[in-house]
Amino acid sequence: MDRADLERLDRDCPLSPCRERFVLPDGVLYFDGNSLGALPRTAPSSIGELVEAEWGGGLIRSWLDAGWFHLARRAGDAIAPLIGASAGEVAVSDSTSVNIFKLAAALLRGGGRRKVLTESGNFPTDMYILEGLVDLLGGGRALVRAPPDEILDAIDEATALVVLSHVDYRTGAVLDMEGIAARCKALGVPAIWDLCHSAGAIPVELNRCGVDYAVGCTYKFLNGGPGAPAFAYVSRDAIGAFEPAVTGWFGHAEQFRFEDRYRPADSIAKCLVGSPPILSLRAVLDGVACFEGVDMAALAAKSRRLSDLFIALADERLARHGLELASPREAARRGSQVSFRHAHAYAIARALIANDLIPDFRDPDILRFGITPLYMRHVDVWDAVETIDAVMAGRAWEDFRTAEREAVT
Amino acid sequence: MDRADLERLDRDCPLSPCRERFVLPDGVLYFDGNSLGALPRTAPSSIGELVEAEWGGGLIRSWLDAGWFHLARRAGDAIAPLIGASAGEVAVSDSTSVNIFKLAAALLRGGGRRKVLTESGNFPTDMYILEGLVDLLGGGRALVRAPPDEILDAIDEATALVVLSHVDYRTGAVLDMEGIAARCKALGVPAIWDLCHSAGAIPVELNRCGVDYAVGCTYKFLNGGPGAPAFAYVSRDAIGAFEPAVTGWFGHAEQFRFEDRYRPADSIAKCLVGSPPILSLRAVLDGVACFEGVDMAALAAKSRRLSDLFIALADERLARHGLELASPREAARRGSQVSFRHAHAYAIARALIANDLIPDFRDPDILRFGITPLYMRHVDVWDAVETIDAVMAGRAWEDFRTAEREAVT
Repeated sequence: MDRADLERLDRDCPLSPCRERFVLPDGVLYFDGNSLGALPRTAPSSIGELVEAEWGGGLIRSWLDAGWFHLARRAGDAIAPLIGASAGEVAVSDSTSVNIFKLAAALLRGGGRRKVLTESGNFPTDMYILEGLVDLLGGGRALVRAPPDEILDAIDEATALVVLSHVDYRTGAVLDMEGIAARCKALGVPAIWDLCHSAGAIPVELNRCGVDYAVGCTYKFLNGGPGAPAFAYVSRDAIGAFEPAVTGWFGHAEQFRFEDRYRPADSIAKCLVGSPPILSLRAVLDGVACFEGVDMAALAAKSRRLSDLFIALADERLARHGLELASPREAARRGSQVSFRHAHAYAIARALIANDLIPDFRDPDILRFGITPLYMRHVDVWDAVETIDAVMAGRAWEDFRTAEREAVT
Repeated sequence: MDRADLERLDRDCPLSPCRERFVLPDGVLYFDGNSLGALPRTAPSSIGELVEAEWGGGLIRSWLDAGWFHLARRAGDAIAPLIGASAGEVAVSDSTSVNIFKLAAALLRGGGRRKVLTESGNFPTDMYILEGLVDLLGGGRALVRAPPDEILDAIDEATALVVLSHVDYRTGAVLDMEGIAARCKALGVPAIWDLCHSAGAIPVELNRCGVDYAVGCTYKFLNGGPGAPAFAYVSRDAIGAFEPAVTGWFGHAEQFRFEDRYRPADSIAKCLVGSPPILSLRAVLDGVACFEGVDMAALAAKSRRLSDLFIALADERLARHGLELASPREAARRGSQVSFRHAHAYAIARALIANDLIPDFRDPDILRFGITPLYMRHVDVWDAVETIDAVMAGRAWEDFRTAEREAVT
C-alpha cells in the first residue's frame, strides 16, 4: 500500500464531499478535531448575520423574532439523532462541567445511598465537579474511583450515582454503555454518561441502551466552536420525575410571569438555568448541520478505517521510535482517536505542531491523534505518519525538551 | 422647553460622540438597552476575525496564540474599573444565575447560620437559584424575603447569606449598598450583590463600600451581546479564603496537569468552572470597550438628566393617560431607567414597539424605559414621549389588548 492507494480510497469514499463543509487552513494536518472541531463553512456568514442583523438591527426583538428563545432546544433537537435520542430530550446551555453539576446535584439530593462512583481515569473536570459536590452535600457521601474493568462490579445497592465517560479522553477506550446501563437500571442507580468524546464520533444509542442522563461537549466532534455550550440529555422516561437543583429562570414553567416561586418547566427546558450565550450557541447549529445526510454507521466505519490505517502504519514505521500504542487495537473498543505513549510526548507534540501536524498532548505521556471522519482523508493519515517518522528520525523534538510546559490543547 | 432646546443639549454634550461607537437601526427609539445593549461598532469585525482567523485558521492553537485562555480574566479586568473593583477581582464566565449559584453555594457550605436573606422584589432568577440551593443543602436553611425597607433590620446574627440586587429591575430603585455592606461586615454576614442593572449604568464602588462578592450581567448596559456570559467578583480580601463549591477544571491551579484531585487556583480564576463560550465572551470586550475614556460620574450625570427629563415630560403629557410613575422621583435613589405602572402595560408595550419605540414590559403592569447614556440622546426622550402620547391618545394600544401574551423582553 502506498499514498496513491489512499488517494484512490479518498476519491471513492462517499463521505469525502463532507470535507467541503469545512474551512481548513492550507498545509496543516489537523488531528485535533476532538479538542476543537474545524470551522463549518456556513459559520462565518451565519454568525455575521446574527451579529449584524439580529443583534444590531433586531435588538431585543430578536429573542422572539429570530428565535433566540428556542435556540437551546433547537440545537438539542439537532444533536438528538446523533446520540440515539429523541427530539425534546436534549438542550444546549452552559459548559459540560456545569451540566454535570446540574444533573448530579439533582440526582444526589435526598435518598439514603452515599456512594458516588466514577472511573479512576475519568476526565478531570468530571471528577472535580463530583468531588466539590460530594463535599458540598456532605451527609457521608463519598466519591469512589474504580478502574474501568472494575466499574461493573462496583455498582451496587449502596451506589447513589454513577458518572462515566463513554470514551476515555486519553486512550480512546470505550466503556460498555449497554452493559453498565443495564446493571444500573437493575439496581435502581442513576447514571450520567459524559459523551464529550463520543457524540458525533462513534455510534451512541442512548434510548436503545436505556440511558436516562447524559451530557456532552459540542466543540469537539460536533464542530460548535471554541467553548461552545454543552448539551444535557434527560430521557423522556426520566424527565417527569427529574427535579432540578440549579433552578434558574430559563428553566421556569413560565419564565416571563416573573413569579416569586420556582416552578420547573415540564420539559427538557427544566435543565436550562440562565440566558444561554447566543453567539456561541448559534454556531452549534452550524457545527451540527455538517452531519446532515450523513449515516452515522458509515461515519463510524470511516473512523475505524482511518484509525486502523494509522495503527498499521504506526506499527510499521513509528514503533521503532518508541511510540507505544495507548489505544485499544480492537476497533470496536476504541473511540475516534489513536493515542501513543512516549516519555517525551510533550516535546514531540510541540515539534509536530512546528511541522504543521497538530495532535494533542495529554499529561503525562500521551500523544493523541483525533480522527474526524467528516473532514479527514486517508492521505492525511499517511502524511501524518510521514511527518511523525521524520520528526522522530531527525530528533527534531529534542529542541522542545526544555521548552516551558504550556497547555498544548 | 422644546425639541430644539434638546437638540442643543445633544450638540453640547461631551458624551454625544460615544453614540458613534454603536450601530443603531434607523428610525427606532431604543429604550431597552437595559435588556440588551446595542451593537458596538467594532463587534462585527472582531467576531468575524475570531471566527475566520482564530477558529478557522488557528484552530486549537488559538487557545494560546489568540489568548482564549485569558479572555475570562481579561474581560473581568476590563469591567473592574466600571464597578469600583481592581484588576484580578473579576472574571467573566457562565450566566448570572450560575454565578449566583457558584458564590452562594460556596458561602453557604458549613457554618451554623441558617437564614438566607433576599429582597421580596428581587429578580426572579436570584430567588429561584436560592430557593433551589437552600432546598438542595437542607439542614434547616430557609430563604427569607424581606421588602427593601426592612432589609437592613433583617440582617442579623442568624443570617448565613444576603443576596440583593443593587437596582430593582422593575422600578429602578437603588439599595443603599454602603449601609447594607457595613451592617453585613459588622455582623460577619457574607453578601452577594447582583449588579445586573447597575454595572455600566450608575456609579458602583465595590471596593470602597467593602463589598466582597458580586455578580452581574454583561448583555445589558455593558453591551456584550445576547446571553453574553456574566461576571463574578470576589474582593482581594475575600479571595484567599474563598473555597469554590462548583469545582471545574478551569478553576484548577494547574488545569493541564490533569490531576485527579481538585486544587483551586489562588486567584479569581477559582471562580471559573468549564470552558467559557469564546464567541460570546469575545463580544464582551467590544461591549466594555465602548466605555473607554468615559468618566463614570459624567455618564451617571447624563443618565439622571435624561431620566429627569423623561419624568418631567411624562408629568406634563403622560400622567393624563393613566401612566403612573413607578420609579423613584429622587434621582439619587434611581438606577438608569424610568418605569411606569398601567393596567394595560403589556398591550401598550406592544403598541409602542409597533410604532418603533422599544421599551420593556415587566409582569404584571410595568412599562420600563431603559436609559443608556452612552448612546441615547436628549431628543430621543422627547420623541419617545411624543410617541407614547400619540399611542395613548389614539388608543392604538387597544388593538393589542387581546394579543397573546408573549415575552416582550
